[in-house]
Amino acid sequence: MQEYEPQNKEFEKTIRESFAKQNLMQAFGAKLISITPGAATIELPYRDDLTQQHGYLHAGVITAIIDSACGYAALSLMPQDMEVMSAEYKINLLSPADGEKLVARGTVLKPGRKLYVVRGDAYSARDGKEKHVAAFQGTMVAVRKKD
Amino acid sequence: MQEYEPQNKEFEKTIRESFAKQNLMQAFGAKLISITPGAATIELPYRDDLTQQHGYLHAGVITAIIDSACGYAALSLMPQDMEVMSAEYKINLLSPADGEKLVARGTVLKPGRKLYVVRGDAYSARDGKEKHVAAFQGTMVAVRKKD
Amino acid sequence: MQEYEPQNKEFEKTIRESFAKQNLMQAFGAKLISITPGAATIELPYRDDLTQQHGYLHAGVITAIIDSACGYAALSLMPQDMEVMSAEYKINLLSPADGEKLVARGTVLKPGRKLYVVRGDAYSARDGKEKHVAAFQGTMVAVRKKD
Amino acid sequence: MQEYEPQNKEFEKTIRESFAKQNLMQAFGAKLISITPGAATIELPYRDDLTQQHGYLHAGVITAIIDSACGYAALSLMPQDMEVMSAEYKINLLSPADGEKLVARGTVLKPGRKLYVVRGDAYSARDGKEKHVAAFQGTMVAVRKKD
Repeated sequence: MQEYEPQNKEFEKTIRESFAKQNLMQAFGAKLISITPGAATIELPYRDDLTQQHGYLHAGVITAIIDSACGYAALSLMPQDMEVMSAEYKINLLSPADGEKLVARGTVLKPGRKLYVVRGDAYSARDGKEKHVAAFQGTMVAVRKKD
Repeated sequence: MQEYEPQNKEFEKTIRESFAKQNLMQAFGAKLISITPGAATIELPYRDDLTQQHGYLHAGVITAIIDSACGYAALSLMPQDMEVMSAEYKINLLSPADGEKLVARGTVLKPGRKLYVVRGDAYSARDGKEKHVAAFQGTMVAVRKKD
Repeated sequence: MQEYEPQNKEFEKTIRESFAKQNLMQAFGAKLISITPGAATIELPYRDDLTQQHGYLHAGVITAIIDSACGYAALSLMPQDMEVMSAEYKINLLSPADGEKLVARGTVLKPGRKLYVVRGDAYSARDGKEKHVAAFQGTMVAVRKKD
Repeated sequence: MQEYEPQNKEFEKTIRESFAKQNLMQAFGAKLISITPGAATIELPYRDDLTQQHGYLHAGVITAIIDSACGYAALSLMPQDMEVMSAEYKINLLSPADGEKLVARGTVLKPGRKLYVVRGDAYSARDGKEKHVAAFQGTMVAVRKKD
């Protein structure tokens, strides 16, 4: 993985504050596990109310978690006066998401002035073993913060 | 739009039962508005706990709703002994999702024996006016029901 | 389809000149059939040297043609001092592309200041009948022309 | 990267024969550099007739090359009586493709019975240095060979 120099020295604080304001992440019980320049990890303990009709985590839930991990990976490299929005993404679902928790890792492939191309992967973990459940690729946009 | 002949004469019953078993749709308060051969509409009343950090519906929530609409559009054309899983999809986010509710419409572009290519769109509605907020394209898979 | 007001009154001239400079389109023998504000159609007569191992048009060829149609659909709505680049796209291949020619239609779903979300479709035509062979969705970027 | 056990012991021969039959790859002057179980590399020497209007390799050309690399990565893991077709893919274009040649590497993320999820990347190489120009993710399908 590439090494990046953050423009916002307080990127971790910025991101932890943003994460705390994401109502959906709170509603899901997701946790921001780590944030480094260009990479973020979010975990979601399995919950029965977040499933589809077969008892696995719903594709939309998996998407939301990887999307957030990738969004924060991008935000870690943005200047302090910018915030992040998802422009587009694509996800391939590889295996049903069961297990004790979902672990999503997002990384920046290419930071730009406005557009950040990101990749992410989600794993379902059980007894310390991980199964690859989803692969994600997309674009995050830097937008100027409103006062 | 194309006209399709459903293989499962009770497709609407099958889909309403499946929707009722999707815990996430219930947790979100989503409603299955209509289901016809090859098309489905789901609505989600706006809720503050489903937002991202700027107060708009989270991209993952929008994705979950369109994904479900597209999945049921596909399921409406499958034989009775099959169920539907999302294989992959891509979404472009066009505008922030505010308004009173989100309306997602899914349609089948191409039904196959195993793979169904689908397109969907989501709109945020306010005062009877709709704004296009997301465009979705993906693949649904028919899998044999387990007893 | 939406109606758009072009910012560049000479958009058709701009696009025909750009198309003529696309070496790949010339090498493929593709023809720019029509260009209106927010929409473009390109046709490719079937050629045996553009096929994959089964004798159908190669997915990359289909992609190139739809990508160009969508790019010009976007360029038709851009100011005169901008040019268009593809940022990302996704394609689903629906049927093998045989027939006499490939017809690709691109339209703009959402024009922005910098990002244009587009959708496209390709059909293979034989004896005046069209078969849907590919569905495309992506993002075009407006970049300032270099002198 | 994962290690895979090929089902077709002659996978390299199968793929080299298939590559030779891909007219487009021959027309482009592309070369199959390496093929191992679950991975393939294809190179394309830069050619002026494969460019878009700014003199860079056309997005459709880049797509064709990565698509082929990913398709062969998938085919290397399929049984001998199967062949490969692209079902869908998504590409993000990261930088203009100039340089002396394009190097595309495809790998299998998840082999299935019918569906193979793949990832690919393309680099433009100049003076022995590589620049990441495109990121690709998609699905390949195994289809039974016709006699």
